[in-house]
Amino acid sequence: MKVKGCHFETIWINPDNPAIVQIIDQRSLPFNFRIEDICSSEEMYVAIRDMHLRGAPLIGAAGALGMYLALLEFKGNKVPLEYVASKATYLKSSRPTAVNLSWAVEREEREIKETGSGGERSKQEVVEVARRVALEIIDEERTNCLKIGQHGVKLIEELSRRKHNETINILTHCNAGWLACIDYGTATAPIYLAHEKGIRVHVWVDETRPRNQGARLTAWELQQHGVPCTVIADNTGGYLMQQGHVDLVIVGSDRASAHGDIVNKVGTYLKALAAQDNNIPFYAALPSSTIDWLLSEGAMDTPVELRDGDELRIMEGMNNGRITDVEIIPAGIPVLNYGFDITPARLVTGIITERGITPANKKGIFTLFPEKT
Amino acid sequence: MKVKGCHFETIWINPDNPAIVQIIDQRSLPFNFRIEDICSSEEMYVAIRDMHLRGAPLIGAAGALGMYLALLEFKGNKVPLEYVASKATYLKSSRPTAVNLSWAVEREEREIKETGSGGERSKQEVVEVARRVALEIIDEERTNCLKIGQHGVKLIEELSRRKHNETINILTHCNAGWLACIDYGTATAPIYLAHEKGIRVHVWVDETRPRNQGARLTAWELQQHGVPCTVIADNTGGYLMQQGHVDLVIVGSDRASAHGDIVNKVGTYLKALAAQDNNIPFYAALPSSTIDWLLSEGAMDTPVELRDGDELRIMEGMNNGRITDVEIIPAGIPVLNYGFDITPARLVTGIITERGITPANKKGIFTLFPEKT
Repeated sequence: MKVKGCHFETIWINPDNPAIVQIIDQRSLPFNFRIEDICSSEEMYVAIRDMHLRGAPLIGAAGALGMYLALLEFKGNKVPLEYVASKATYLKSSRPTAVNLSWAVEREEREIKETGSGGERSKQEVVEVARRVALEIIDEERTNCLKIGQHGVKLIEELSRRKHNETINILTHCNAGWLACIDYGTATAPIYLAHEKGIRVHVWVDETRPRNQGARLTAWELQQHGVPCTVIADNTGGYLMQQGHVDLVIVGSDRASAHGDIVNKVGTYLKALAAQDNNIPFYAALPSSTIDWLLSEGAMDTPVELRDGDELRIMEGMNNGRITDVEIIPAGIPVLNYGFDITPARLVTGIITERGITPANKKGIFTLFPEKT
Repeated sequence: MKVKGCHFETIWINPDNPAIVQIIDQRSLPFNFRIEDICSSEEMYVAIRDMHLRGAPLIGAAGALGMYLALLEFKGNKVPLEYVASKATYLKSSRPTAVNLSWAVEREEREIKETGSGGERSKQEVVEVARRVALEIIDEERTNCLKIGQHGVKLIEELSRRKHNETINILTHCNAGWLACIDYGTATAPIYLAHEKGIRVHVWVDETRPRNQGARLTAWELQQHGVPCTVIADNTGGYLMQQGHVDLVIVGSDRASAHGDIVNKVGTYLKALAAQDNNIPFYAALPSSTIDWLLSEGAMDTPVELRDGDELRIMEGMNNGRITDVEIIPAGIPVLNYGFDITPARLVTGIITERGITPANKKGIFTLFPEKT
C-alpha cells in the first residue's frame, strides 16, 4: 500500500544489495517513518523479538528471510546441516509463541535439507533456496490478503448499492492491516480494494488500548493510502452503532476455531455484541492458516495471554518533538492486561477467507476447505 | 472516605477560617493529593470551569459555596439583589450544562431573596443564609449517597451469601465515586458499605478512555480507602465476564429516563451488553435528581455531547517526577470524541436510588417516586 505516495510492502530484499533485508520499523509509527536495514540473522532476531515488526504473516516472512541472512553470512563454501538447524532454533526463539514463525523457519530448514544428501550443502545453492522459499512465503501471504480483499469487497459493494453510493462506514479493531502482513492486510484488504474501486468508504478506527495499535498503526496506514478514517476511543463504537453510523464491522483474528469462534484482540467481543444488538453485520477476515482445525469444541476455552501491566501503565507519545514515555497509572495500583478475547460464532455474521466468505459454522468452513475434514 | 488514613470529603468550609472554602484539587490525582484554598467567588468559578472538581453533586455544592463566598466578599452592609443575581449568573456560566449547578445556585438566590423584601438584604443575614443552604445541599447529597449505599449493599450481601463469603468482583466504569459527590459516591457507595461490613469485595476499574477517570480517580479513591481494586483497559471487561470473573456491574448515571434508560459515560452500553450476554446483574446507582421525569419516550434520543478531540490525542502522566503531556495521536489524523452513550432499560437489571432499588421501568420507578406521576 502507499506511504507518502509510493508503494511499500512491510519487508523486502534491498534490490541494490541483496545482502540486506529492509523493513519498516513499526516502533516509531505513526511519529516517524523509518526504513531499517537488517544485515544479519542476529539483527533479524532482535527485530522480531523487540517488535520492530509484528503481525503473524509478517513475522513468518521475517523468519524466512532471517534464515536467508544466516546462510549468506556463513563463512565457507559448504554449510553443515547442524549450522542450519542451530540458526533455525535461534530464530524461532525470537518469539516462541508465534506459530507462523516456526512454520516458516521449518519450511526453510526442510527445503534446504532436501537440496542434497549427507551432512553439508553447497552455500551458493542453499542461499538461493532460502531466498526462493522466503519470496514464495511473501508471495503466498500477499496473495492470500489480496484474495481476502477480492471476496470481502463484494460485501462493501453490496452495502454501497443499498445505500445508493453513500459512504459506507466500517468499524475495525486493532491492526489487521498491511503493516501486520506483506500488503493489503486482512481486515483492511476489502477496504483498500473498495477504495481503489472508487466506492466511498470511511473507517472508524478503535484506538485499541492498551497498545493503541488502531490509533498508531491502522489510522496511519489508512491515511497514508488516502482512505478516510477517524480514531475513536474503544468505548465509542457502541454509541456510533446505536446512532446508525456503522454499516459493517470487519476485524482480523489471531486464531479461529473450525466452528467459527474468533480469538482476536481484547475488546473485539464487545463490538460483536454491539453489532448484533444493532443488526450490523460483523465479519472476521483471516487466511485459513489462522484456523485451528483441532479446536473441535470451539475456541471458548483458548488460554488467553496475560501480558505485562506496563502496557497499560506506560503511554508513549510525542513531547516537544521527542518520543516520550509517561506513567499514567501509578505503580501502587494493580492492573490486569489480557491480550485477547473470544467472540463466539453466534455473534459472527461470516468469515472472509482467501477461498471465499462462509457463515461462521463448521458446515460452511469445511465446505470451503473440504481437504481439512 | 479515607485518604492516607484520614476521613475526607470533597469540599468543606475551613474550620479555622470560614472565609476559605477548601477542595481536593482533582486535576493532579492520582499523582499528587493537593488541598486547594478557594478564597473568592472568582476562584470558585475557575475551579468549576477548569475542573479542579467535577461530578454533578459536587459541582452543585461548589456553586452554592461560591454564592456564600460572593456574599462574604461583598463590601458594605447591605447587599443589593442585583449583586446576588449577577453573581448567580456568573457562577452558573462556569459550566453552563451542569444541571446541578444551576439548581444549587438558584436555590441560594431564592432563599436569599426570601429573607426580606425590597431590593437589599443585610449582609450578615444573607451570608448566614448562603452558608446554611450550602451546608444543607452538602448534607442532602451526602445522605442520598449513604442511602444509595444502604440499599445497594443488600445486593452485595446477597451475592456474598450465595458465594459462601468468597470475594465478590464488581465492575465499574468511569468515576461515580465519592470524588464526584461529597462522600460515599453513587456507584461506589454500596461497595464502600460492603467493605465496611467486612464483606470481601474486589473492584474491576475500567480505565475509561479518553479521560481515564477510572484509572485516575476511581482506582485512587478505592485504594486510599483500602478497597481492593484492579485497573483494566475498557476492552477487557467482556473477557472477564466470559471467564466468570465478574459478579456484578454497578455504574453511575448522568441522566436517566423515567423508563429506566441510562445515559452514562461512553462505553457503559458495551458493558451492559456483555453483562446481559453472561447473565451478570447490571445496576445503575443514582440519586433521583438524575432522573429526567420529562423523558416520556425514554432517553434513546438524548443529544450526546461531542467533546474536544484533544482528550483523545493528549495523554497526561508522570515523566521524571513531573506531570507531562504527550501527544499520542498525530494532529493530522481525525478523531471523534462522544462523552456518553445510552444504555436501554432492557439491559439494566435495576436502579439503586436513595429510596430503594427498582426494576428499570416506569412502573417500578414511579412506585418509588409516586409524587412524580
